[in-house]
Amino acid sequence: MTDISAIRAAATRLRGHARVTPMLTSPFLDAIAGRPVLIKAECLQHTGAFKYRGARNAVAALDPPGVVAFSSGNHAQAVALACREWGVPSVVVMPADAPQLKVENTRALGATVVLYDRDTEDRDAIGARLAADRGYALIKPFDMAEVIAGQGTAGLELAEQAAALGVTRADVLVPCGGGGLTAGMGLALEAVAPGLRVRPVEPEGFDDVTQALATGRVVPNARLSGSICDAIVTPAPGALTWPVLQRLCGPGLAVSEDAVLRAMALAHDRLKLVLEPGGAVALAAALFCPDERRADDEPVIVMASGGNVDRAVMMRALGN
Amino acid sequence: MTDISAIRAAATRLRGHARVTPMLTSPFLDAIAGRPVLIKAECLQHTGAFKYRGARNAVAALDPPGVVAFSSGNHAQAVALACREWGVPSVVVMPADAPQLKVENTRALGATVVLYDRDTEDRDAIGARLAADRGYALIKPFDMAEVIAGQGTAGLELAEQAAALGVTRADVLVPCGGGGLTAGMGLALEAVAPGLRVRPVEPEGFDDVTQALATGRVVPNARLSGSICDAIVTPAPGALTWPVLQRLCGPGLAVSEDAVLRAMALAHDRLKLVLEPGGAVALAAALFCPDERRADDEPVIVMASGGNVDRAVMMRALGN
Repeated sequence: MTDISAIRAAATRLRGHARVTPMLTSPFLDAIAGRPVLIKAECLQHTGAFKYRGARNAVAALDPPGVVAFSSGNHAQAVALACREWGVPSVVVMPADAPQLKVENTRALGATVVLYDRDTEDRDAIGARLAADRGYALIKPFDMAEVIAGQGTAGLELAEQAAALGVTRADVLVPCGGGGLTAGMGLALEAVAPGLRVRPVEPEGFDDVTQALATGRVVPNARLSGSICDAIVTPAPGALTWPVLQRLCGPGLAVSEDAVLRAMALAHDRLKLVLEPGGAVALAAALFCPDERRADDEPVIVMASGGNVDRAVMMRALGN
Repeated sequence: MTDISAIRAAATRLRGHARVTPMLTSPFLDAIAGRPVLIKAECLQHTGAFKYRGARNAVAALDPPGVVAFSSGNHAQAVALACREWGVPSVVVMPADAPQLKVENTRALGATVVLYDRDTEDRDAIGARLAADRGYALIKPFDMAEVIAGQGTAGLELAEQAAALGVTRADVLVPCGGGGLTAGMGLALEAVAPGLRVRPVEPEGFDDVTQALATGRVVPNARLSGSICDAIVTPAPGALTWPVLQRLCGPGLAVSEDAVLRAMALAHDRLKLVLEPGGAVALAAALFCPDERRADDEPVIVMASGGNVDRAVMMRALGN
């Protein structure tokens, strides 16, 4: 099980490797939200997403002869870079409909990419077989203790940065796919900043965690593709992440595609940040979810990650 | 005269107000440049540009009853925010062809905006008259000791961040209009990191500083409008900045509009940063100037600021 000591160990392993990403604000976004919005700009992490934290921690903790991973794209790039830094080979299984930029980057960072069909093939099975065949370690995108611990280091940083801004009581909205980041941050905040509560944010139609938190029962998403939020389209939370999410999360939030595109455009205008759709869901929730728009002065904190968006999708957001 | 003690005093005034902006890198950009590229992401500063440093320092140092400023847009927003924070009114003279986003932001931050024609009217005269009429302080965009000192604080930060990455010998490419940032950073680096040498970067056709450095004689640019790099279209360096530039700068560089647009697209893809054309010239020089593309392993440092770009211009860069 991941706990705060595992997260602290991860922070030690990541020191000098992962970036300390800045906490940003904008008076224009505060005005839209009706309260102060603090944005943790984790899209500025290496490879453009928080995933580098978990991948680097897992590689450093396991010291494997090689790594197999499956990923919609951000974990793929993170594993490729972490393995290149560590000097070991990586094989990454990616969906055939992953954004071109993510596939190209993963290859350019030195990984061997194996494509699969998201609707008909089982990436877990493909990954497990490849790992067994080669004697490599399988580094899962979220349901793995070392990965959750690595993502949790973003929570340690966020707590410190929020405290420096005088914020010790707030909701922390987190883009949520399989729940690795949300669980890791929840565990970190529970230990170091109990006034900060994580809440998962998902795309409408892919809000399995939000539903599961509401009903207490995990029902996988009906669809596995068809969202612009490719990074966080995951059938269901994991065996390791779900119990943590259930224990630590406030209510989940689901956002529309239109809200996501508008949040991307505002991140461009107001924060000078490039966010991909899946990385913009938490900002979209802070700005546009009706029950989140309030003037009660309690700040809201937003995780903004990742930023690996094809140019055409960003142009769509900007032309919206 | 601005010196290192004035810059250190500015750093003290700015502490807790200006953001410490991160230093970023990308293996993809290193590959294009043929050597390591360190990017100081100053577009993440308040109001999206380094200008906040100089404006805030000047307002804090002068403690005026009100402020008049003239600006193509980034200094305008910076003065507006600094005055709002300080609790004094501001009047800002802006060219009628300034990007819409910059004019709107300046108004939204509380300034009274006065528009003028860049080709036929003299902004210095308009600003001086407004200041005299109202008894306000005139805070110039670059040719003012307190402003140069404020911009210099970016140099102090950059030197520290470069040293932490093991870089103590490098060229520092700086977007250059009137030379406030370049002069301020040059003075800071001379004192704390003499192995780091500033070099101004300008748009082709508006390279007055580059020409003046080469010939030793200042000849104002023939044109005052017609560049996408609106932020750094300035007729000539100032009376205060020029002697500093002449003493401390390495050779200047001029970049094409096409190189600027490509640099903006790469900042989007690889750094997850939004840069405006004028803020992307130094990155463009590092990536695309033939004599700057070399594999001699000496890193190059790039100032990336500002980021206040209209969506249509960013879409043009992304669709390029």
